[in-house]
Amino acid sequence: MIQSQEKPDRVLVRISDLTVQKADEVVWVRARVHTSRAKGKQCFLVLRQQQFNVQALAAVGDHASKQMVKFAANINKESIIDVEGVVRKVNQKIGSCTQQDVELHVQKIYVISSAEPRLPLQLDDAVRPEVEGEEDGRATVNQDTRLDNRVIDLRTSTSQAVFRFQSGICHLFRETLINKGFVEIQTPKIISAASEGGANVFTVSYFKNNAYLAQSPQLYKQMCICADFEKVFCIGPVFRAEDSNTHRHLTEFVGLDIEMAFNYHYHEVVEEIADTLVQIFKGLQERFQTEIQTVNKQFPCEPFKFLEPTLRLEYCEALAMLREAGIEMGDEEDLSTPNEKLLGRLVKEKYDTDFYILDKYPLAVRPFYTMPDPRNPKLSNSYDMFMRGEEILSGAQRIHDPQLLTERALHHGIDLEKIKAYIDSFRFGAPPHAGGGIGLERVTMLFLGLHNVRQTSMFPRDPKRLTP
Amino acid sequence: MIQSQEKPDRVLVRISDLTVQKADEVVWVRARVHTSRAKGKQCFLVLRQQQFNVQALAAVGDHASKQMVKFAANINKESIIDVEGVVRKVNQKIGSCTQQDVELHVQKIYVISSAEPRLPLQLDDAVRPEVEGEEDGRATVNQDTRLDNRVIDLRTSTSQAVFRFQSGICHLFRETLINKGFVEIQTPKIISAASEGGANVFTVSYFKNNAYLAQSPQLYKQMCICADFEKVFCIGPVFRAEDSNTHRHLTEFVGLDIEMAFNYHYHEVVEEIADTLVQIFKGLQERFQTEIQTVNKQFPCEPFKFLEPTLRLEYCEALAMLREAGIEMGDEEDLSTPNEKLLGRLVKEKYDTDFYILDKYPLAVRPFYTMPDPRNPKLSNSYDMFMRGEEILSGAQRIHDPQLLTERALHHGIDLEKIKAYIDSFRFGAPPHAGGGIGLERVTMLFLGLHNVRQTSMFPRDPKRLTP
Repeated sequence: MIQSQEKPDRVLVRISDLTVQKADEVVWVRARVHTSRAKGKQCFLVLRQQQFNVQALAAVGDHASKQMVKFAANINKESIIDVEGVVRKVNQKIGSCTQQDVELHVQKIYVISSAEPRLPLQLDDAVRPEVEGEEDGRATVNQDTRLDNRVIDLRTSTSQAVFRFQSGICHLFRETLINKGFVEIQTPKIISAASEGGANVFTVSYFKNNAYLAQSPQLYKQMCICADFEKVFCIGPVFRAEDSNTHRHLTEFVGLDIEMAFNYHYHEVVEEIADTLVQIFKGLQERFQTEIQTVNKQFPCEPFKFLEPTLRLEYCEALAMLREAGIEMGDEEDLSTPNEKLLGRLVKEKYDTDFYILDKYPLAVRPFYTMPDPRNPKLSNSYDMFMRGEEILSGAQRIHDPQLLTERALHHGIDLEKIKAYIDSFRFGAPPHAGGGIGLERVTMLFLGLHNVRQTSMFPRDPKRLTP
Repeated sequence: MIQSQEKPDRVLVRISDLTVQKADEVVWVRARVHTSRAKGKQCFLVLRQQQFNVQALAAVGDHASKQMVKFAANINKESIIDVEGVVRKVNQKIGSCTQQDVELHVQKIYVISSAEPRLPLQLDDAVRPEVEGEEDGRATVNQDTRLDNRVIDLRTSTSQAVFRFQSGICHLFRETLINKGFVEIQTPKIISAASEGGANVFTVSYFKNNAYLAQSPQLYKQMCICADFEKVFCIGPVFRAEDSNTHRHLTEFVGLDIEMAFNYHYHEVVEEIADTLVQIFKGLQERFQTEIQTVNKQFPCEPFKFLEPTLRLEYCEALAMLREAGIEMGDEEDLSTPNEKLLGRLVKEKYDTDFYILDKYPLAVRPFYTMPDPRNPKLSNSYDMFMRGEEILSGAQRIHDPQLLTERALHHGIDLEKIKAYIDSFRFGAPPHAGGGIGLERVTMLFLGLHNVRQTSMFPRDPKRLTP
């Protein structure tokens, strides 16, 4: 066991660096035993480091004893080992490894950390594409087994790629916004009063009282706007005590939130948000092509398409498209999930984009703090954004006038006492502002063409899952 | 009220751009009324935008009627207004404004958002340095008034600087780690079992069961290491149900967390963390000098000093220094807060640094998962880092062997059933690893020489405060 006894000079070489340039060099490698196959006086190992792997051969001879080969053959899969070996060029490419042109001839082998002999899931099964329709008899791993054994499931090339890609989304989001002059803020998650009337909120015991978990950072983002920060963003957990067991709902997810003061029209904000997403999409396609392709191997999908500038449709246009496709919907009716998806397909056919903005929602289907449209009292200055036909962002111009805010809250039957602090935030001068919140797991899922948000949350939380 | 009726072409000029280069130009400015003083046929306004301000003069004449001047004089402080005016060079510098060489001669004025006439606190009072010892009769604002009216308190030049600076810490932390090859992860905050035995943990009602708020992302960071991510970091809320009402404890704070697999010695990780902090300190001094100086005006303090490489002392050396200074302490005794501070002063005197690492803590004072020192069973492979004599990071090599982890948990009297999932994470091969967690609010406070962590949390949470 490595207990930090010493600081040896030994250099550990990365598997990704094992190429023909290193042929005939003696190197040390630390890696997992991905597979192991003994055959007479030889033992073939596949050594893995994240998404890279290389073949290693322990064969009885000058540098390896019979005991050593036997020892190697008995190391459990997924154990971490240190191997000293000579890099040898191979004549025939090793198709099953990422390092196809070399193998490692083992001279010494140490177990750094041993895995238990029985693995709850096999990595090779976990990356096998699920072939619809035909049953080829080869095992795949169901979602609960994956999630119950996430430490192993996250080691697959697909999982490694998904979460490196997701780290990239956060990085691109912040990089873009900081370049645009935004300030990152940190908002509290424990709050004293349930916002928006208190549905779907988790209760926390707070010393001798009750408190709640924030369903969104919105109030705090807006307070920062009222406090002159002008353009703010935050990344943090968002909590929804909703008993929804769907492919796209979690009880805890990561919100990428934006709020911004504008001069004259909330479209200034809509354009800033849409451009931020476009910068993220471009960055992902430029910097994470390997990860995208790795995920595609297991989950094939069309490349993600978007336009510049982003397509913006008004709600009434969407209604017309849906009605033309035979859907009956009222003018002030919200989009159902199937209609959202259908609309996504219609938009893709007509405009060839997987990303668009739907603007000017009916006032009746939006929260009380949404600014009404100045020309049509049935509409509002609000918008959603969609990727591959699913909503990833919801936003609006917020009412910044305490009088109108009070009126709209009363109209919605909200107890004014409960939102007093919220309304009071606008009493000392508030700039017009708008914003929105993006679901990180959904963006990851939809860009990569995955089918369940649990694939894009490392440790997902839903009504039935709180572990690991 | 701006309800997004139109998209005018009008350009709004920033106050920071109002210089003599713009002399005699007609410009539009949107700003807050910082102060207003009517004098006969004239009204002097100070217009403010974040930390910048400019004097504006509305005087009865060709471009301004008597009514307009009266209207201007009656606008409440902190209201947001649009002003059209001519930029005029002034003969005598205006000492009270950031734009000292020009003033704005008002031609038109509109109120965009009106503030209520009575402000709960005055911005000028809120930035006044508290002069110790002498009472000069000028008002300052106490902390509860500030926090109760945070939307206004955050508008002061000091608050604006503190939180821009804090945004910079997060940015530098991530920038440095991403350059070092770290992956950003998102860890769940709602967890099924209270870690480390369950003291000081908030309980959440989770549908029909109970859950808890994570006191640290540590288990999840470690699982990511066991899942081969090798180097991970996260930024997120951390919850402590501790009834501590001190200057440096919050019930919810922001953790900057790092976890990293190493090859042979946990000092590889210590060096990486210390270098990350040094990169942050350098970045802050390079990019945020204006903010540092703004805060210093209200809260004077010595510039923050650090060494390269970072000073690393062993716990026994610190004990010797303290004993030499007359403190009586046992070898396996933890540092009290006063002793921490005293040690900080002794280290500053001897080594001239405000930042140092204290390494090799007694095993007895560290959590059960801390790796024991391989040479001295009374010590451990653990460390804290200090800024200006206060702890900002606690970390250690973690035990990665399930057998030893079980033994240590039993030794600490921890119910194995409760930490089963944690121990099981290490059963399928775990690399040696170490890490640590940094408190964002403390780093901000100590670098800037502030005195209370509530000054560096936008919306602080403590046992007595849950609002706003």
